[in-house]
Amino acid sequence: MTSPVVPERPRLPWDPPDHFEKRVPDGDNRERLVCARCEFIHYQNPKIVAGAVCTWDDRILLAKRAIEPRKGFWTLPAGYMELGETTEQAAQREAREEACATIEIDRLLAMYSVARIGQVQIMYRARLVSADVAAGPESEAVALVGFADIPWEQLAFPTVVWALAHFHDSRGKADFATYSNPTGDLAKMWPPRKPAGL
Amino acid sequence: MTSPVVPERPRLPWDPPDHFEKRVPDGDNRERLVCARCEFIHYQNPKIVAGAVCTWDDRILLAKRAIEPRKGFWTLPAGYMELGETTEQAAQREAREEACATIEIDRLLAMYSVARIGQVQIMYRARLVSADVAAGPESEAVALVGFADIPWEQLAFPTVVWALAHFHDSRGKADFATYSNPTGDLAKMWPPRKPAGL
Repeated sequence: MTSPVVPERPRLPWDPPDHFEKRVPDGDNRERLVCARCEFIHYQNPKIVAGAVCTWDDRILLAKRAIEPRKGFWTLPAGYMELGETTEQAAQREAREEACATIEIDRLLAMYSVARIGQVQIMYRARLVSADVAAGPESEAVALVGFADIPWEQLAFPTVVWALAHFHDSRGKADFATYSNPTGDLAKMWPPRKPAGL
Repeated sequence: MTSPVVPERPRLPWDPPDHFEKRVPDGDNRERLVCARCEFIHYQNPKIVAGAVCTWDDRILLAKRAIEPRKGFWTLPAGYMELGETTEQAAQREAREEACATIEIDRLLAMYSVARIGQVQIMYRARLVSADVAAGPESEAVALVGFADIPWEQLAFPTVVWALAHFHDSRGKADFATYSNPTGDLAKMWPPRKPAGL
């Protein structure tokens, strides 16, 4: 079986140097990057981003990014899951690191595949344990904003728009299917803006 | 910030060779494996396993593993997600590769974190498009079994027990919270056996 070629995507910090070459290893069925010097096979798999829509009463925690990409734009606390964690622990750690926030996970809100950049984003619904939040090293500022005050056009990524729209839709519901990649208008949220009907 | 040490886990095929050394890269806050020869930083993050509980009428698709680990034991079609896929596409590809099965995704059934081995397992509920299934290269056999005939003690992994128990619990439900790591008796399914009450 031959494999589809990995789609074009931006070069990322963890992409290996140029002396890694594309080759199908024995017993495998798709091209991998192999170090031409030591034969180390560098398997590249999708990475998990874990985060949460965190609330204090009716207000939602947003963080203004202090780092690229999308420095200066607003996002939900979220980041790459590390080894040794559960997805819930990763979301809690990111809230702590980016917004000095302690959160309690409520339930899984959404899971989005962003195939172009090799990410799966796992977003929880969570409660802030206190309103005591502050910018961590990767944030310029943090804010607790009412839904009506969300700066839609200043959001950092399409998935942030999706998660906020899905969070709004899930309000007051306990049992609901975990949201996934939207279709229709909500799928076309770039540049970011307020989705119709919200 | 210093990071917790990654927990002990079995050596895996994608672990780098011995000339990679543990070091905290500039701008990072935890130890990574860095190639002592070329400074390539080998980020290790959790990997995603995607799979499905696939049904034909009331029967469930199981595959007998032809490869280690747990060769000869029964599993649900599932495997490592690749770059360029969505989680749904990964689950569909694994059903095709392991059981020559064409499936339609119904909805997200469960997401399990297996922190010890750096995995997040994403399991869908799916329908077989036909009962025409067959062993793929990684399977010794495939079977469509009624719930009463599941070979519980011959299942390959605890997460297979969990997914089958959660699938059973979800039957007839459209809206339900995605299942996650169980607590109580179901969390202690090693060696594998039929969970109490099923």
